[in-house]
Amino acid sequence: MSCAPFDSPVSDSLSQAVKALWSWPAVPDIRDEALAARVQHKLDFKTKPQGSLGTLERLAARIAGILATDAPQLELPQMVVFAADHGLAARGVSAYPVDVTWQMVENFLAGGAAVSVLSRQHAIALNVMDCGVARDFAVREQDPEHKLPKAGEPRLWRRKVAYGTADCSQGQAMTVEQCAMAMRNGAELVKKLPGNALLLGEMGIGNTSSASLLLARLCGEPIEAVTGAGTGLDAEGLARKLAVLRQVLELHADVQQPLAVLAAMGGLEIAAMTGAVLQAAAERRVIVVDGFITTAAVLVASRMQPHVLQRCVYAHCSGEPGHARMLAHLQAEALLDWQLRLGEGSGAALAWPLLQSACTMLNEMASFESAGVSTKS
Amino acid sequence: MSCAPFDSPVSDSLSQAVKALWSWPAVPDIRDEALAARVQHKLDFKTKPQGSLGTLERLAARIAGILATDAPQLELPQMVVFAADHGLAARGVSAYPVDVTWQMVENFLAGGAAVSVLSRQHAIALNVMDCGVARDFAVREQDPEHKLPKAGEPRLWRRKVAYGTADCSQGQAMTVEQCAMAMRNGAELVKKLPGNALLLGEMGIGNTSSASLLLARLCGEPIEAVTGAGTGLDAEGLARKLAVLRQVLELHADVQQPLAVLAAMGGLEIAAMTGAVLQAAAERRVIVVDGFITTAAVLVASRMQPHVLQRCVYAHCSGEPGHARMLAHLQAEALLDWQLRLGEGSGAALAWPLLQSACTMLNEMASFESAGVSTKS
Repeated sequence: MSCAPFDSPVSDSLSQAVKALWSWPAVPDIRDEALAARVQHKLDFKTKPQGSLGTLERLAARIAGILATDAPQLELPQMVVFAADHGLAARGVSAYPVDVTWQMVENFLAGGAAVSVLSRQHAIALNVMDCGVARDFAVREQDPEHKLPKAGEPRLWRRKVAYGTADCSQGQAMTVEQCAMAMRNGAELVKKLPGNALLLGEMGIGNTSSASLLLARLCGEPIEAVTGAGTGLDAEGLARKLAVLRQVLELHADVQQPLAVLAAMGGLEIAAMTGAVLQAAAERRVIVVDGFITTAAVLVASRMQPHVLQRCVYAHCSGEPGHARMLAHLQAEALLDWQLRLGEGSGAALAWPLLQSACTMLNEMASFESAGVSTKS
Repeated sequence: MSCAPFDSPVSDSLSQAVKALWSWPAVPDIRDEALAARVQHKLDFKTKPQGSLGTLERLAARIAGILATDAPQLELPQMVVFAADHGLAARGVSAYPVDVTWQMVENFLAGGAAVSVLSRQHAIALNVMDCGVARDFAVREQDPEHKLPKAGEPRLWRRKVAYGTADCSQGQAMTVEQCAMAMRNGAELVKKLPGNALLLGEMGIGNTSSASLLLARLCGEPIEAVTGAGTGLDAEGLARKLAVLRQVLELHADVQQPLAVLAAMGGLEIAAMTGAVLQAAAERRVIVVDGFITTAAVLVASRMQPHVLQRCVYAHCSGEPGHARMLAHLQAEALLDWQLRLGEGSGAALAWPLLQSACTMLNEMASFESAGVSTKS
């Protein structure tokens, strides 16, 4: 099954309404055959059989293409964990209580979460964006708005649009205004961040439900095929989740346009991430996609500006069953197949040194000529 | 198809002969249910759904088991690239000329090879062992025998047993004495190296042939199923290679005992690696296995001391078709599936930060209790 064809989003009235609130950036085609040929030539004359570094070579070529150079350097990587709550969680679609969203935000900032320790390991600056968590966070002295993020000092960006979405089994998750505001917030944060790589992470109890709904509606996948246990539902819980998601899809049966689907069934963190992806893509940053929920944001963004996909690197294929199908729709190759299902950006942080290796290989390996090594006989 | 049952290797005369030259270490069973339970409990109470870090959790548990602690620290990782030439290469089983072996050794030492740049990236000390290259290397001032290896300073260990193996389509690749000497050299080098992790690499034009032969004979795999293009043979070259390998297997049709198979069809670098694996396993180092050829050495070592397998981590499943089958025989789970087919230890170096992440996660992540996060409802 293939995705519905891309429709120009500015042609319809909802997009116009969002555009009135936030004018998202254009994301041009960056295909450059001359550069690609130059990079391929460089790869082919490294001291190794042609193609023998497999995925590492394709990864190097992709990063080179994004950064528009045959000598790419990754600089000041920024992890942003987009956090928000979901009204649908009240329907029992998650194995964990809603409070875990804010508790985990505190854990990110305190340095104890998986994404915290892995970001620290790789000197990735850790940003946490409150897009719509159902709790007020204390103001922290270490987070002044003007300060640039630094590796090893997690920081909170306060961009709360609402105390979570509304229950989308009863109505819209977000108003068009809330959705546009969250998207703009995500984009504006990216503008402030240094460096040339954005790593996507997310936190929001209930958000695998939104990701499954977006995939089902935007790509025409049957909901039962793309709904999983999330953080760890048992069989009964999964059946309950599936029943709720079917109800959501019925309620919003006539909603088809990507932005409308996002507002109806998405989350504030997914909306903010969608905006961040559009902005990062416009700036030609390398976008490191984590798991199921971050990929859902990329899916939505790609329906608004299809060339965002040229800027993405997919860290892993997760244990959540919908993710492999979503990646297939995006024709995406994932770096790791580790059955991760934590989110937070943990998979993106884990995979980060592999991106660095791709650049190191392209930049530092000797050529047959420079090393005096014989070529194939 | 499963492997032939393990026979006590000391029971036969060849093993006795080798033992007279080199008495390999015992590798005891290190299974420790109490430790494993302690590690699992620690993993399960980290701030994440149980098991949600998938492969990373299993990797952490394995490293903890090898290092006999629930707070494992990887220290001073040592890459050893075992290099030697193969008499069989004269039969045209490789796409590259034999000179590439010594040229690549020079490239490792000069810092331009894939394993050089990746080892440098991760501060892995790079050791190159001349086990039997068909060329004399100049004595280098920076390689005194007493000096310990340091990250960023590649060094050569001169342990040449012969100028390559003999052509095993005509007779034995090695004498029993040569094979035992190479194994002992590998083990003795490991004894000198600091740290608690050994990364395996290899270089030897023609050595995928040896690996295919070892797999075919030791595990009963049909040779056509486990023979691949190596560094890049075309269809004609592959057919030629296969014909030669069939001839080798016929010539040595009655050779079945692991050490005899190694001496008959192996390589000096594979023998040295086998000795290194036995020694590293006896010392409870974490052994990071690279691709097809390094796994072949692990296969041989596991037939001598089956518990070596408890100490191994498999960096990747390579593009060489026999590797997946070999890993299946060893019941091994590979970290990356990147279609790498370069060897050198490049895949092991690439995967190294993933091992570090496993330890970082186990050691630094907060527990639900310490972070004040609610558990599953």
